[in-house]
Amino acid sequence: MSIKGFRFSAVEAAIKKPGRLDLALIFSDVPANVAAVFTTNKVQAAPVVISRQRAKNGSCRALLVNSGNANACTGEQGMADALGCGRRTAEALGLPDEELLIASTGVIGQKLPMERFRAAIQPLVDGLDHGTLDQVASAIMTTDTFAKLERRTGEAGGKSYRIEGVAKGAGMIQPNMATMLSFLVCDASVDPAFLGKAFGEAVDGSFNAITVDGDMSTNDTALIIANGAAGNPVIKAGTPEAAAFLALLKEITLALAKAIVKDGEGATKFVAIKVQGAASNADAKKTALAVANSLLVKTAFFGQDANWGRIICAVGYSGAQVEQDRVEIRFDEVVMVRGGVFTGGAAEAAGTEVLKRPEFTVTIDLHLGSGEGVVYTSDLSYDYVRINADYRT
Amino acid sequence: MSIKGFRFSAVEAAIKKPGRLDLALIFSDVPANVAAVFTTNKVQAAPVVISRQRAKNGSCRALLVNSGNANACTGEQGMADALGCGRRTAEALGLPDEELLIASTGVIGQKLPMERFRAAIQPLVDGLDHGTLDQVASAIMTTDTFAKLERRTGEAGGKSYRIEGVAKGAGMIQPNMATMLSFLVCDASVDPAFLGKAFGEAVDGSFNAITVDGDMSTNDTALIIANGAAGNPVIKAGTPEAAAFLALLKEITLALAKAIVKDGEGATKFVAIKVQGAASNADAKKTALAVANSLLVKTAFFGQDANWGRIICAVGYSGAQVEQDRVEIRFDEVVMVRGGVFTGGAAEAAGTEVLKRPEFTVTIDLHLGSGEGVVYTSDLSYDYVRINADYRT
Repeated sequence: MSIKGFRFSAVEAAIKKPGRLDLALIFSDVPANVAAVFTTNKVQAAPVVISRQRAKNGSCRALLVNSGNANACTGEQGMADALGCGRRTAEALGLPDEELLIASTGVIGQKLPMERFRAAIQPLVDGLDHGTLDQVASAIMTTDTFAKLERRTGEAGGKSYRIEGVAKGAGMIQPNMATMLSFLVCDASVDPAFLGKAFGEAVDGSFNAITVDGDMSTNDTALIIANGAAGNPVIKAGTPEAAAFLALLKEITLALAKAIVKDGEGATKFVAIKVQGAASNADAKKTALAVANSLLVKTAFFGQDANWGRIICAVGYSGAQVEQDRVEIRFDEVVMVRGGVFTGGAAEAAGTEVLKRPEFTVTIDLHLGSGEGVVYTSDLSYDYVRINADYRT
Repeated sequence: MSIKGFRFSAVEAAIKKPGRLDLALIFSDVPANVAAVFTTNKVQAAPVVISRQRAKNGSCRALLVNSGNANACTGEQGMADALGCGRRTAEALGLPDEELLIASTGVIGQKLPMERFRAAIQPLVDGLDHGTLDQVASAIMTTDTFAKLERRTGEAGGKSYRIEGVAKGAGMIQPNMATMLSFLVCDASVDPAFLGKAFGEAVDGSFNAITVDGDMSTNDTALIIANGAAGNPVIKAGTPEAAAFLALLKEITLALAKAIVKDGEGATKFVAIKVQGAASNADAKKTALAVANSLLVKTAFFGQDANWGRIICAVGYSGAQVEQDRVEIRFDEVVMVRGGVFTGGAAEAAGTEVLKRPEFTVTIDLHLGSGEGVVYTSDLSYDYVRINADYRT
């Protein structure tokens, strides 16, 4: 079964290095609802400014996205370039400008190569007849090492529907302010107000719960386009179908978010930082983030060093309510710290074994209340430094 | 001229690896005033808890400090160990316990090797007859690659006086919450209230204005002991002597703070992040810190890549008031960004040349108000990762 009423295309416009797809198009054959979240960075790329405005209408027909150039900090020229590319694409599709959303990712501060970009638009539109979402997933990659694509099937009113999504990440990943790029398409008919609410909730628990390096991008964009081509009765808030849809949406966004962390620049570990017993959920997230973003914790993960001291140190400066002598820390099943002190020799060896796993969970129980939260993160390796010291060269 | 009325000692107690000084003592022959600031981390080492309490008296005679073990997260045993070592040292010096301050630095969560520590106390006290502050500077090093020692001479009421200080840093360095360890001795007679105020002001512009990795330690302690042995009339607030003393204090703390950044773990660059034109001084510091702590900015410095896009990106998420199209960024004398956009081709080459310098200043003018602030930081290199992946092994 494939998703209904959507077509895809991707081409090589020579925005990135030769030999790689870098321009993609998602097109809905019929009018579709859209819900979107964007970066909260005060420095925002031109496409973010444009798409944020257009997404407010709640509907769209197409999304144009390029990698290799973020079109950020490019001033009036950048805005004119984004609008110009958008207009040309919308014309080729026979749409009003406002029905097309735009996204960009890549280096900040360089002008779009407009000649090459413009030349690629007609081939891109022509490609809608034979393109795939897999190609879109490839075309949005920058330092990503693998394409991120997830597909799920749901049911509403006896009709099957699909949610499919792509994402790109790798660096400049910090939660609480949208994500990098993630685009989901869905052929279910979904009430627009519910779609927005459900998407916001799903993003909070997925893209807003990951961090690779604590840097928030100027281009973060996550959106879902739902076109109703599956022919189901409209999914409305408060129904069992809505609950099932939300669960599916959470599942697919979390899978994509986890893929972003696993492919974090230079990452060798995938670590869930789970905080419980906090004074509030906000405190739990604050604590998890402080631990997840600590360079000393991240390098210890890379070194497979069961250095819980750095973890409790980060817990202490997180800003959350903390009572040192209540803190408990576990590496998977191994209790490392209880009552704020080390549990002793056997835990050292067992904890070190846990850190040799490619994926593990650090559970921090503050024993203060019932607040909880989880953040997914990666380690900090030589390769993170190599990739980012060399990125533009 | 040497500092009057202070004696120093350092010995090898085998707390660190063999062959390195790791236990030191500073002793004033006469009662002295003390001003101190400590970590604001909610997880605090036993010596911090003890010294914070004792420093409140405003006077002390001696400071005992070890490296190689932070005595943090060691629970009641750690507190008993710190008190026990302190008592034994105070007894050997013929002082009440409360006249001795204690500090520790090193690995978190391991119990002090009490047998070796205790055995070293008498030799340490005996060493006061021939020890030097240089030895103290060496004894407090952990991953530091050089000892940090500064000496200054002032004058008050026709009498010369000295301020001398040591510091240790390297990792877990983040401002706004005291520093790592820094101990200053001064033989001037200084009014205690003024001493506290002046020291706080000096720390704000020095130890609280540096960051290596954004991690705040459980053991940060900075203090000054002033014993009046120079015989000058008491330096009181509001006098020219007070102004001169404050200027000297700022100079020596800033020199020590800069030395900490230069010796930041794996550092190859020393960078001043200077923000001006901010809506407030607080906004300026927030902006400078966001840039100084951005992994992407720090790796670009290491790669000598004039990647101003990452800087403006961090400015945007700093939380400060920012208007994208007013931002100006300079690398030393080279204007890279004006009105939020790149100034063009020649700046790229010139900016890259600046980044090849071992020390440079990034000036960010927000063009919004008169707020300003500066933060000193280092780059992020392979060696930071190597040092911290391996630290405990």
